[in-house]
Amino acid sequence: MEPLFELALRLPGAGSRDLLRELHRQLRSAILDGRLQPGARLPATRALAQQLGVSRNTMLAAYDLLLSEGYLLARPGAGTYVADTLPIARGGHGGRGSRSGRAPKASTPARRDPRLVPLDVPGADLAPTLQPQAARDDFRVGLPDVSLFPFDIWRRLSDRALRHTARQAARFADYADPQGQAALREAIAGHVSFTRAVGCTAADVVVTAGAQQAFGLLARILVVPGRTVVAVEQLFYPSLREAMLAAGARVVTVPTDDEGMCVDRIPPEARVVCVTPSHQFPTGVAMSPPRRAALLAFARARNAVVIEDDYDSEFRFAGRPLDALQTLDRAESVFYVGTFSKSLFPALRLGFVVAPPWARAALVRARELADWHGPVLAQEALAAFIAEGHLARHIRKMRKLYGARRTALLEALARHGAGRLEAVASDAGLHLSARLLGATRADAVVERAAAAGIVLPPLSRFALDANAPGVPNGLAFGYGLIGEAQIDGAVRRLVALL
Amino acid sequence: MEPLFELALRLPGAGSRDLLRELHRQLRSAILDGRLQPGARLPATRALAQQLGVSRNTMLAAYDLLLSEGYLLARPGAGTYVADTLPIARGGHGGRGSRSGRAPKASTPARRDPRLVPLDVPGADLAPTLQPQAARDDFRVGLPDVSLFPFDIWRRLSDRALRHTARQAARFADYADPQGQAALREAIAGHVSFTRAVGCTAADVVVTAGAQQAFGLLARILVVPGRTVVAVEQLFYPSLREAMLAAGARVVTVPTDDEGMCVDRIPPEARVVCVTPSHQFPTGVAMSPPRRAALLAFARARNAVVIEDDYDSEFRFAGRPLDALQTLDRAESVFYVGTFSKSLFPALRLGFVVAPPWARAALVRARELADWHGPVLAQEALAAFIAEGHLARHIRKMRKLYGARRTALLEALARHGAGRLEAVASDAGLHLSARLLGATRADAVVERAAAAGIVLPPLSRFALDANAPGVPNGLAFGYGLIGEAQIDGAVRRLVALL
Repeated sequence: MEPLFELALRLPGAGSRDLLRELHRQLRSAILDGRLQPGARLPATRALAQQLGVSRNTMLAAYDLLLSEGYLLARPGAGTYVADTLPIARGGHGGRGSRSGRAPKASTPARRDPRLVPLDVPGADLAPTLQPQAARDDFRVGLPDVSLFPFDIWRRLSDRALRHTARQAARFADYADPQGQAALREAIAGHVSFTRAVGCTAADVVVTAGAQQAFGLLARILVVPGRTVVAVEQLFYPSLREAMLAAGARVVTVPTDDEGMCVDRIPPEARVVCVTPSHQFPTGVAMSPPRRAALLAFARARNAVVIEDDYDSEFRFAGRPLDALQTLDRAESVFYVGTFSKSLFPALRLGFVVAPPWARAALVRARELADWHGPVLAQEALAAFIAEGHLARHIRKMRKLYGARRTALLEALARHGAGRLEAVASDAGLHLSARLLGATRADAVVERAAAAGIVLPPLSRFALDANAPGVPNGLAFGYGLIGEAQIDGAVRRLVALL
Repeated sequence: MEPLFELALRLPGAGSRDLLRELHRQLRSAILDGRLQPGARLPATRALAQQLGVSRNTMLAAYDLLLSEGYLLARPGAGTYVADTLPIARGGHGGRGSRSGRAPKASTPARRDPRLVPLDVPGADLAPTLQPQAARDDFRVGLPDVSLFPFDIWRRLSDRALRHTARQAARFADYADPQGQAALREAIAGHVSFTRAVGCTAADVVVTAGAQQAFGLLARILVVPGRTVVAVEQLFYPSLREAMLAAGARVVTVPTDDEGMCVDRIPPEARVVCVTPSHQFPTGVAMSPPRRAALLAFARARNAVVIEDDYDSEFRFAGRPLDALQTLDRAESVFYVGTFSKSLFPALRLGFVVAPPWARAALVRARELADWHGPVLAQEALAAFIAEGHLARHIRKMRKLYGARRTALLEALARHGAGRLEAVASDAGLHLSARLLGATRADAVVERAAAAGIVLPPLSRFALDANAPGVPNGLAFGYGLIGEAQIDGAVRRLVALL
């Protein structure tokens, strides 16, 4: 009997996607932890395949992988052996599903290699994503509920997109339009015309890999490194600012009150102004009509442009939506940025810019330089998803769900937080913010909450300087991930921590 | 009878993906070309839906789209009318499948808006893709044959990835690892370890949106704008150079002969050296072992890095592959860039970098800044495609197909081109180049060929200065798109044009 026969290998069923991977992983583990000793001879692939009930080809492939990685050595005519020197010097194996391969944030390198250009972005560790997920009550912001997403429909449309494309193989072999698939641009134009009265046609839409790429491409075409002044709101979406900084912008923050950005405080030299008028991130207030008019007047007078980040206003629960800046604009100064990360799911990585005509060619060129174009099949599937009304339907369904959670949250804040935690008025979106009325500081609350299994960010996390005048002392409550029934108890326990 | 009843609408069958889109498009066309006059009253949706045999919801959605676009006007209580002023002032409608929405190249703007940063890249119009496709004999380079791609397997794996992910909805709602899905990185590491002896684990792999994004991200972390000198081969892949220029690099070209880049001619101040050692783009020569050693010695001595672009060496037809620079490297100075655009299909937009440990965190951070991460489902599908051996199988199959075409091409060149057109020795890849031996200039030949329906690029298209000493007078023949049977005739007709 060969030694390997005594190894306890637990393999998934034949035909499983994971078979080869598991076989490879478990054999490698056995080598790494010494169950298979250096120099040990392995059984012939045929014999081992038979014993394990896998195909000989799978067995051969597993041996080949281990051979190519240096875990095994083949001695011609003499069989296969565990290598004496193991190939782990290069830093360990990431492993399946393991995150050990995850690189640490570049913002805290031990020592930078002189060959690297500094990519440090001051305050870049503000980014609110990728927090630990082991929360009992998860109020993280900006993440949607995907449990009601119609995966079956999406699968059907993806299938169809693939079949369609396969039939036009010649077209498929080529690179596609960097501006985005025509069908998707048309669908997006129809969607935003309809839902947001954003006046545009397919020709005005540039498809991007989510809003993040949109910000990066806009920075690319609008920012002269070291010179261009970009104004953001006092509290802002950290990744937007990072994209601007990474392009060399001089980013300034502008005070923001309960009517949105204080337009009269924008430095006159600002050439790009970034705002979230529908649902200020993260406070949730809507920019008032006079401020909207003033901002457009500023842009016109100063030859500046506005980046309108409309990330989650599809979810509106009360009142009439205010016109988008893009809709009000008469000077072609607004770039309207939308994303499907909130209305569908972040893993899709699809967003878009509605760009004024004078900037479109440059924006398309920037996309082409960045990565040619987006994945064709996903774009076609999304085009069909929108054109057939599934997006509108999904948004309606989710609006109901989020609306119930929002109501539960408002009620819980009123019930448990009266006099201590006061909701900021807001009619739309995937999160709500609340002000702390006492002297307790929000970041202290957040720390205590985390210890109690409640995860949520302080508003100050979205400010450059948490202590600057005007930065509200408060908390943001995302309701994309938390169930309606959980909300009351979570808020009660949170208030008890104040 | 309402006027609309007389319109000839030709709609796809009920349930078709295109129903709403076609309905919308045909009604809009009727409005635009005057078959439906301004002011005309449209029938009630219910009546028209019945007559056309579509659902009322679809009919409503079509009206809603046209209303939101301004083609129709609703007068409360009085019905729906064709608008008097049509919303076409903003630049026309892209239309389904139309390319009218395609932006012109930014390199030839009539007049640049002062708000735009110059994105002009000198020589950027070199890019060889997006040429007209109406060729009878299509020798374009860099485009694979996808007619044998196992779309059914891909569909099955995509389905499975979606089902899998749907079951882990909570994970799906979040953003994913910017370095790439762990399963895909592991599969890639296994693949390149096996096929190219590139020593790496999943932890060393960074997934990118094709090679183009890889170049852009590498430029981002390696190039100090206005300062860093980047060396490329005398003939080069235009998009690589563009990515470097766009990041502010000072790009210099280095003479290249039949052993590849002349390493002793690299300017000592170069800090990044970009090469295609397996299959020089576009001449096809392989970098000789001494040159490989010299390049690595240069990098070590000068603290420079090497970008090894290994874009199509999976298709090897003769001889043993030379070791990748990454394999030979002992100083962690090589970034190995791979892509699935040639081995699978460009529309997939997936590629990768095998990065040395010191640069990995920065590269991941650069990806995160650019667009967070790649699409999760496509990554998972590709991971399974590789892990289950389909990639290796597809490459084997395509190698046979391309090999036959390559043989046909070599034979045709020998048969018809003797003394006039001489193939450049090359053992791998998706294209072959040939030198013109007479005085006829390649670009003149290419023009005449295009008129005769034969599309192929002159080698000089990949040089900065077509007349520089050392730039070969020759042609590149891609065999990704042309059938084996067509090749002999095409070459014969081409030679007749000399």
